[in-house]
Amino acid sequence: MRTIAIHGATGSIGLNAIDIIQRHPDRFKANVLTGGSNITKLVEIAQQTSAEHVAIADLAHYQDLKKFLPGVQIYAGTTGILEAACIDVDMCLAAITGSAGILPTYKALAHCDYLALVNKESIVAAGEQILAEAQSQNTKILPVDSEHNGLYQIFEESHRSALTHVTITASGGPFRSLPKDQFHTITKERALKHPNWAMGPKNTIDSATLMNKGLEYIEAALLFNLAPGQIKVVVHPQSIVHALSSYHDGTTLAHLGLPDMRSPISYALAWPERIKTPVAPLNLATIGSLTFEEPDYERFPCLRIAENVMKSSQAARIVMNAADEIAFQKFMANEIHFTDIPVIIQNQLDALSSSPINTIEDVIALDQSCRQKA
Amino acid sequence: MRTIAIHGATGSIGLNAIDIIQRHPDRFKANVLTGGSNITKLVEIAQQTSAEHVAIADLAHYQDLKKFLPGVQIYAGTTGILEAACIDVDMCLAAITGSAGILPTYKALAHCDYLALVNKESIVAAGEQILAEAQSQNTKILPVDSEHNGLYQIFEESHRSALTHVTITASGGPFRSLPKDQFHTITKERALKHPNWAMGPKNTIDSATLMNKGLEYIEAALLFNLAPGQIKVVVHPQSIVHALSSYHDGTTLAHLGLPDMRSPISYALAWPERIKTPVAPLNLATIGSLTFEEPDYERFPCLRIAENVMKSSQAARIVMNAADEIAFQKFMANEIHFTDIPVIIQNQLDALSSSPINTIEDVIALDQSCRQKA
Repeated sequence: MRTIAIHGATGSIGLNAIDIIQRHPDRFKANVLTGGSNITKLVEIAQQTSAEHVAIADLAHYQDLKKFLPGVQIYAGTTGILEAACIDVDMCLAAITGSAGILPTYKALAHCDYLALVNKESIVAAGEQILAEAQSQNTKILPVDSEHNGLYQIFEESHRSALTHVTITASGGPFRSLPKDQFHTITKERALKHPNWAMGPKNTIDSATLMNKGLEYIEAALLFNLAPGQIKVVVHPQSIVHALSSYHDGTTLAHLGLPDMRSPISYALAWPERIKTPVAPLNLATIGSLTFEEPDYERFPCLRIAENVMKSSQAARIVMNAADEIAFQKFMANEIHFTDIPVIIQNQLDALSSSPINTIEDVIALDQSCRQKA
Repeated sequence: MRTIAIHGATGSIGLNAIDIIQRHPDRFKANVLTGGSNITKLVEIAQQTSAEHVAIADLAHYQDLKKFLPGVQIYAGTTGILEAACIDVDMCLAAITGSAGILPTYKALAHCDYLALVNKESIVAAGEQILAEAQSQNTKILPVDSEHNGLYQIFEESHRSALTHVTITASGGPFRSLPKDQFHTITKERALKHPNWAMGPKNTIDSATLMNKGLEYIEAALLFNLAPGQIKVVVHPQSIVHALSSYHDGTTLAHLGLPDMRSPISYALAWPERIKTPVAPLNLATIGSLTFEEPDYERFPCLRIAENVMKSSQAARIVMNAADEIAFQKFMANEIHFTDIPVIIQNQLDALSSSPINTIEDVIALDQSCRQKA
């Protein structure tokens, strides 16, 4: 029986993880659940899973949560989320969205054997500190993002010297074929309609700008210890092929599957085993055609920004990540246009003065200062 | 330094293997070469590689071969080929075409640590005996056929219980889109033009009838110990994806690469390392589209014949293999039509009386009796 803490349990990934956990009650026990503010959903899944520890970020829900979940240890607020991250479990699923996940992810490393990593922002902003802490705590990181999970499955560590490059695919998002002169017409509603994946709003908007792929590009470089030139992005509208690794003998290995996050989640939860999921088997003859094209950096400048940032500094990565969240929030509030998102990010990057980053506290401080300036 | 015997050195695979060996003189030494009747090519590659032992199947060339290769140990005839198979080397590349390869492949197992297997007919006809001999001699078999080599690279033995099925791809050959009522117009010349792969004539004709995929289907079942229902064939005209393995979590792993046999040959020769080859890296955005379709069993009955034979007996596999070679020879001699090939094979199968097959001699005897009857 593997005990599991789910950080961000009420989000899209958290709920899919609970679906998998409930299909394998002999194998998994969700002991710890944390959520942001969706108390209804949090109570529902806490009751379903009989979790012993439940935390909610929104302090206003503390008393209600206690009332609805008698006998359960309740935590609330930012400190409550961090307390919940410090409960010992076998595995932690780090699925909080955005910078809010950095500190809980970091803290959890000392309290689990396996960290199933969804929160890509924690690696983009704090990869060095998180990887060092994982090593010092002897905690194994298992990537859950479909591209990185796929890459993990096909990456041959023993053939690292024969690796020429890895490729992560991008669906291209809802505006893949939209001409540049139409980009000013993009609304929030259209940007929130992802063609293939059911994801949270931040991920979905990031997919529309291709910043999601930019974040994943950086995540791949840090998680797999690759040089920026060893990572390629290819647009693949069907989202069937998730990742590829290519070697100097002409071989390319690939990870494929229908776009359903329960597949990579199950892989991480059960590692090193492969457990049954309800994800339908892939039938290529039914799908018929898989297409691939180069990303268009002109219409989607966020991807280029991220590639450049990866060649720059950790401070630049923190600023880019924070600025992307700020721009996302402004776009969701109808305060800016879709095309303003890369401009806001680039402006914040241009304003960055030299900031040495050593500790996780340095990361959080720079992230916070970006938000205060915005 | 790995010493290598190449059986079938003057064929398409043999020459590609020599290309790889010559690019890595620090790693490989071709000690033994065998050929059928192409003495000019055999002398040329024997001189290039400084092979110490050279055998030619055609006895008529014995004296000439001795004259052209002074100081080299020369063998000739069927017994000469078998003598050459019994020279101790680190690795044997079993690349003789057709049933002629069965006995040399079997004999070689006692004289090498690794058998790089190209001769699929030896597995189709004598899989049980060859796999048992490999086990008793502690000789590792490394498949070279692009599909099986690809499958070998992505097949997770540790997740065998999670495997749902494997898929091998077929280009569909030159008549993939030809309507059935045009099949009577197919000439030898058209059938010998494979759209993607440069191969020997037997393989090329087998690709046009899809019997090649039928042989590979059987080879996959035996080499990977799979039930017939665990192997699927999908037509993929671009020949970029070679093999896939699918698991019950929704994951499919795939092996891709440009259709160039030097890639799988190098993999087998250098196993467990990956060495550099001149095969161009795969660029999916340049290729643009990968398409997949179900095989058409009506126009290509050979594939169904092979699938049925796999569910039958080893004797049926031996007969099918021999009948396919007989039909190939008749087609090449303009004695039969393209559409007669499956008819001849099915007729031989229908005439099969119960034949218990235990030893390699039983295999050879049944194979020979098919040829005498034809």
